[in-house]
Amino acid sequence: MSLSFGFEFAPGLPAPVSKWSGFPKYNFIGGHNDAAQVPVEQLIAAATAVLAREGSSLATYGLNSGPLGYRPLREFLVRKLRWHAGITCEADEILITSGSLQGLDLVNSLLLAAGDTVLVEEDCYSGSLSRLSRRGVEVLGVPLDAGGLRVDALANMLADLQRRGIRPKYIYTIPTVQNPTGTIMNEERRAEVLRLSRAHGVPIFEDECYSDLIWDGRRPPALYALSNGVGVIHIGSFSKSISPALRVGYMVASWDVLARILALKTDAGSGALEQMVLAEFCTAHFADHVQRLNRGLYAKLETLSAALAEQFGTTAEFEQPRGGIFLWLKLPDSVDTQRLAQIALAEGLAINPGGEWSTNKQRGKTRLRLCFANPDKETIRRGVAALAQICQREFGVPTRIANIKR
Amino acid sequence: MSLSFGFEFAPGLPAPVSKWSGFPKYNFIGGHNDAAQVPVEQLIAAATAVLAREGSSLATYGLNSGPLGYRPLREFLVRKLRWHAGITCEADEILITSGSLQGLDLVNSLLLAAGDTVLVEEDCYSGSLSRLSRRGVEVLGVPLDAGGLRVDALANMLADLQRRGIRPKYIYTIPTVQNPTGTIMNEERRAEVLRLSRAHGVPIFEDECYSDLIWDGRRPPALYALSNGVGVIHIGSFSKSISPALRVGYMVASWDVLARILALKTDAGSGALEQMVLAEFCTAHFADHVQRLNRGLYAKLETLSAALAEQFGTTAEFEQPRGGIFLWLKLPDSVDTQRLAQIALAEGLAINPGGEWSTNKQRGKTRLRLCFANPDKETIRRGVAALAQICQREFGVPTRIANIKR
Repeated sequence: MSLSFGFEFAPGLPAPVSKWSGFPKYNFIGGHNDAAQVPVEQLIAAATAVLAREGSSLATYGLNSGPLGYRPLREFLVRKLRWHAGITCEADEILITSGSLQGLDLVNSLLLAAGDTVLVEEDCYSGSLSRLSRRGVEVLGVPLDAGGLRVDALANMLADLQRRGIRPKYIYTIPTVQNPTGTIMNEERRAEVLRLSRAHGVPIFEDECYSDLIWDGRRPPALYALSNGVGVIHIGSFSKSISPALRVGYMVASWDVLARILALKTDAGSGALEQMVLAEFCTAHFADHVQRLNRGLYAKLETLSAALAEQFGTTAEFEQPRGGIFLWLKLPDSVDTQRLAQIALAEGLAINPGGEWSTNKQRGKTRLRLCFANPDKETIRRGVAALAQICQREFGVPTRIANIKR
Repeated sequence: MSLSFGFEFAPGLPAPVSKWSGFPKYNFIGGHNDAAQVPVEQLIAAATAVLAREGSSLATYGLNSGPLGYRPLREFLVRKLRWHAGITCEADEILITSGSLQGLDLVNSLLLAAGDTVLVEEDCYSGSLSRLSRRGVEVLGVPLDAGGLRVDALANMLADLQRRGIRPKYIYTIPTVQNPTGTIMNEERRAEVLRLSRAHGVPIFEDECYSDLIWDGRRPPALYALSNGVGVIHIGSFSKSISPALRVGYMVASWDVLARILALKTDAGSGALEQMVLAEFCTAHFADHVQRLNRGLYAKLETLSAALAEQFGTTAEFEQPRGGIFLWLKLPDSVDTQRLAQIALAEGLAINPGGEWSTNKQRGKTRLRLCFANPDKETIRRGVAALAQICQREFGVPTRIANIKR
């Protein structure tokens, strides 16, 4: 008798996962951050203060703040969203979520049914693409350029869909530090995207989970801000700015949308201790912490860029991202990054193959994403050297590799 | 233009929720616990110790433990499940979930499709019933008695379904401090339930979220233990034993089941800080804390029982629960507890009407659930007096009410 006697699984489940065996030696994937930059002492102080003051409120679901989440954290976000993203909203227009992934799931549950169509950016966060695919939704990728979403392409696609009688359920965009390209859409283009959204009655789903990580700190107002919250749902996260393991994100939307979302959020609230500690920490230290974190991340990006120049030369093409924790690379057409990723993983080196991060599989085939926040600088250098070696062995490029320091 | 311009909601959504306006004055609903019993000082010490030791691991998704959850918490659970529930399992047969509600959702996603049939206990946790109903699953309630699930009824129902060619996807049971009846199924009956489960090829979904709260601390082994994990999925929670707001639960299942569940758990892990603090706290203090908590809860139950005897006399029938935080009451047939609950709520007094906690709407109509962990003793006394007044005014019972102390 099998250990799973009697369990007849539902149809259409995803494949089982393999047992976790630790992180790879050269870990260039995932939204992990820099372990040296976790503000441990300040988090201890925050936990101590907030628990001493209101720890007994842990006895009630939702503390004393109700289902939208811990009110002081929402009040911090009201202030932060104003100075950072230009958003004017109230604490009751913010929902704390268990990471921005829960925000993705909730918005998709609110708006999508199988067979619906959505527009996304052609190169796009793989977690968003896989979620849409699991729901049986038709995903159309809008081409990007160095300024983000191409509005000429968006206009053509919307017009074409309208001719065919199809109204997409939303335009999903990561306008501020696009994942994976690292671009920031300027204000003029944002206004044009909003104009197209209104003209076609297609709302916007704005994902800003990386928007705190910008080298020069400068960014245009969020689409949510530019539209005064009309026809836009905005999500964000503390995963990239503070800690991915905490699983705290947020959604900004008008109350009529949140009232529907809350009816779908049947988890009895997101984790309270994390919300309490974050509220306490962020109110005192958020801006300073993010500034310091960005300096450290930029230094790692410089290390990565230099290592790529040294090891790959002109074989690897990329634009410097304006922020974030990842670099989006193009290798020669002879390279299949899916196969490169498989071979590299077997040798302890993890990369994101572009095919998983693009709706355009041909484009994705020669591209890859390298995350640089987690490995230290020496690991970045060694990892890039190892990747170049594997790539040369398997695909014959780069034809010339710098001497590898061991 | 409406604030929700352009949002065309998916079909079949639940109704929007109302804005939260604080807890009612007399709050006899929800799994809230006793604010005075949150071990605040020990949680501060735990947070300080674990963050100082390994706070920098917050930089990686899943800390250094992988997707099953923080390993020291799983290792505590291995020990705790052995001495408490008789379960022998390894840390890799435990998944940490965001509350046991996420466990419910994951198991349902693993096993159920619309049109499937499941067996539940006739009086049953409303959150389980509402989840099944939203999935379009046929829910059949097995009658209960003072010993829990009635195995004679279960045998008849399984035989009848077999004749009709229907194999239910699972038998959902809360054998240890049943919700809402507060009963504990004895070992003999558990063995019989397992025998029926195997004979009919219907697995068991065992929910033990209240099993730490038992007045005399005595309980039979879990169904998972008695079956050596074959054909059983077990879920539990720290919500009732430590804090509901933390949202930390767990699932125990064989690896082949967890490998499928993990493929469905696309949340990038449950909140890490709560897992870290719980592991640190529980390893040192769990048993002592739960013993002290149970003494306090039992004292509140005595206050509630005495208040009911004083205010309702023989009009309110109930069995003393053997643990937990709720009492399941029967009122005379002339009472409609759904209407009673609505009227009471308008007067600041919240109760769970039985119709939401039973598959048998006729049975539920005269029953209600009163949660007693959260209100203090004076609030319990005043609340029961207020409930008796409302009930008398609306339904004419109880015919005689004790003088209300003000």
